[in-house]
Amino acid sequence: MQPKEFYEQENLSPITYKYSNVVEVFSCISPIQKIQVLAHPFFIKILVLDGVVQLTEKDEFFYHEMLTHVPLMAHPQPERILILGGGDGGTLREVLKYDTVKTVTIVEIDPEVVSTAKRFFPNIAKGFNDPRTCVVHMDGCEYIEGLKNEFDVIIIDGPDPVGPAQNLLAPQTLSFAKTALRQNGIFAAQTESLHFHREHIIKTQKSLIELFKFVDLYTQAISTYPGSWWSFSIASMMINPRAVRRCLEIPTRYYSSEVHNSSFFPPKSLKKLLNGELDW
Amino acid sequence: MQPKEFYEQENLSPITYKYSNVVEVFSCISPIQKIQVLAHPFFIKILVLDGVVQLTEKDEFFYHEMLTHVPLMAHPQPERILILGGGDGGTLREVLKYDTVKTVTIVEIDPEVVSTAKRFFPNIAKGFNDPRTCVVHMDGCEYIEGLKNEFDVIIIDGPDPVGPAQNLLAPQTLSFAKTALRQNGIFAAQTESLHFHREHIIKTQKSLIELFKFVDLYTQAISTYPGSWWSFSIASMMINPRAVRRCLEIPTRYYSSEVHNSSFFPPKSLKKLLNGELDW
Repeated sequence: MQPKEFYEQENLSPITYKYSNVVEVFSCISPIQKIQVLAHPFFIKILVLDGVVQLTEKDEFFYHEMLTHVPLMAHPQPERILILGGGDGGTLREVLKYDTVKTVTIVEIDPEVVSTAKRFFPNIAKGFNDPRTCVVHMDGCEYIEGLKNEFDVIIIDGPDPVGPAQNLLAPQTLSFAKTALRQNGIFAAQTESLHFHREHIIKTQKSLIELFKFVDLYTQAISTYPGSWWSFSIASMMINPRAVRRCLEIPTRYYSSEVHNSSFFPPKSLKKLLNGELDW
Repeated sequence: MQPKEFYEQENLSPITYKYSNVVEVFSCISPIQKIQVLAHPFFIKILVLDGVVQLTEKDEFFYHEMLTHVPLMAHPQPERILILGGGDGGTLREVLKYDTVKTVTIVEIDPEVVSTAKRFFPNIAKGFNDPRTCVVHMDGCEYIEGLKNEFDVIIIDGPDPVGPAQNLLAPQTLSFAKTALRQNGIFAAQTESLHFHREHIIKTQKSLIELFKFVDLYTQAISTYPGSWWSFSIASMMINPRAVRRCLEIPTRYYSSEVHNSSFFPPKSLKKLLNGELDW
């Protein structure tokens, strides 16, 4: 197949990312979305949903490690984990590294994403056959409605908050998530780019502040997500997520307790961001 | 003029950035390079040199504040400052905010960049007429050769290290910079993206380690620089640049002593990066 150019269809971004020398190795239209797998000389394989890059083999570990290990290392004993979204398996892979973890429920609306990941990204999707993993194919918001006191950590690993995915961070869903958490549970979610989606971050943070005692924001630059200054929102009723509570006894490429500490947005800056004094 | 698309010609990046709805408001070919000023609905005005985005009005403050205030706030009494490059005036503007600063020498090879900045970016280029400012139009490497014990802070604010600009961070230039610094002087330079130009950063850091006692790295995500996880290298014979030495008494939009502290790459991660254990 002739290499071609791929233009990301990321409508929330003022910059369009163009990838050259791309070969489409797989494409399908599921009932939910268009799924593509691209091969690229630098990023190796790329997973694309509805025209938007979800991950690349080259750098997915930055995203998945930061989304997973910050909440799990802040928790004293994470045993029961819920992932909403995350059908590529990257977050699941990181969660399963913990011996403390007894069950992981992953709620991915689109079974075709899971089967595509298993087929083309075996190093990322390797946790689906783990005996601790339970895969549910339904809408994440519907799944958690009515659950009480079930999980130590809930992670929302969703796509951009447009269309159906915007419900994943709606106040109602966050309220369900709070109820579904155990008393000392921790909630974490990817919440887009500080450069391009500041208002979305502020809105989500304010919704979380209505519900939780501890609410915080940490970041990591990701080259393949437009705006790149990627934010993660984290919240808990009992646990300050800035503190690392255990020794890191699992293999990671990037995450460490040092990275944990330095990834949090400075407290005074966060306060200024939320009250509108820090904008651009 | 009809809006058009602008594709950045950034050959070191595996992603090409495309800006839509761009109007070219100015273009010229100087003896050094092609200079363009673009108008854009989100980024307002954009300065482009040889096809590469140098700054946008929307977000230049992240870059210029971080490049300037980290070395200047780490220094106990910055009086004499040298900027190599920086013809747009952004770094100069930040340096001139300090009452302690008595002279700023800015060595920009291309006078057309300065006149373009004065004409189209008056809020950025406002320091050129300050009585403390001395503008020199020549090659930065040639300028500092032979200078001794002259400056409290030297800042290299260069373009991508290709063509003539790569000499700005060559070991010979860094050695000249060390000699040109006073005993407790501080050196700082932008050193590209951790995501895309890791080897360039490692090489520059290693050159600095050969020369200086304290060598460190700090970062800031910049949406308009491909790879976006922007790095700044900082070095000194006497001063640990992680410590902020004075109260911040100048107006900033983003920089603060909190931001200063959290922007440094974690020490163990930096060690791993330099010895090749942290790569991607």
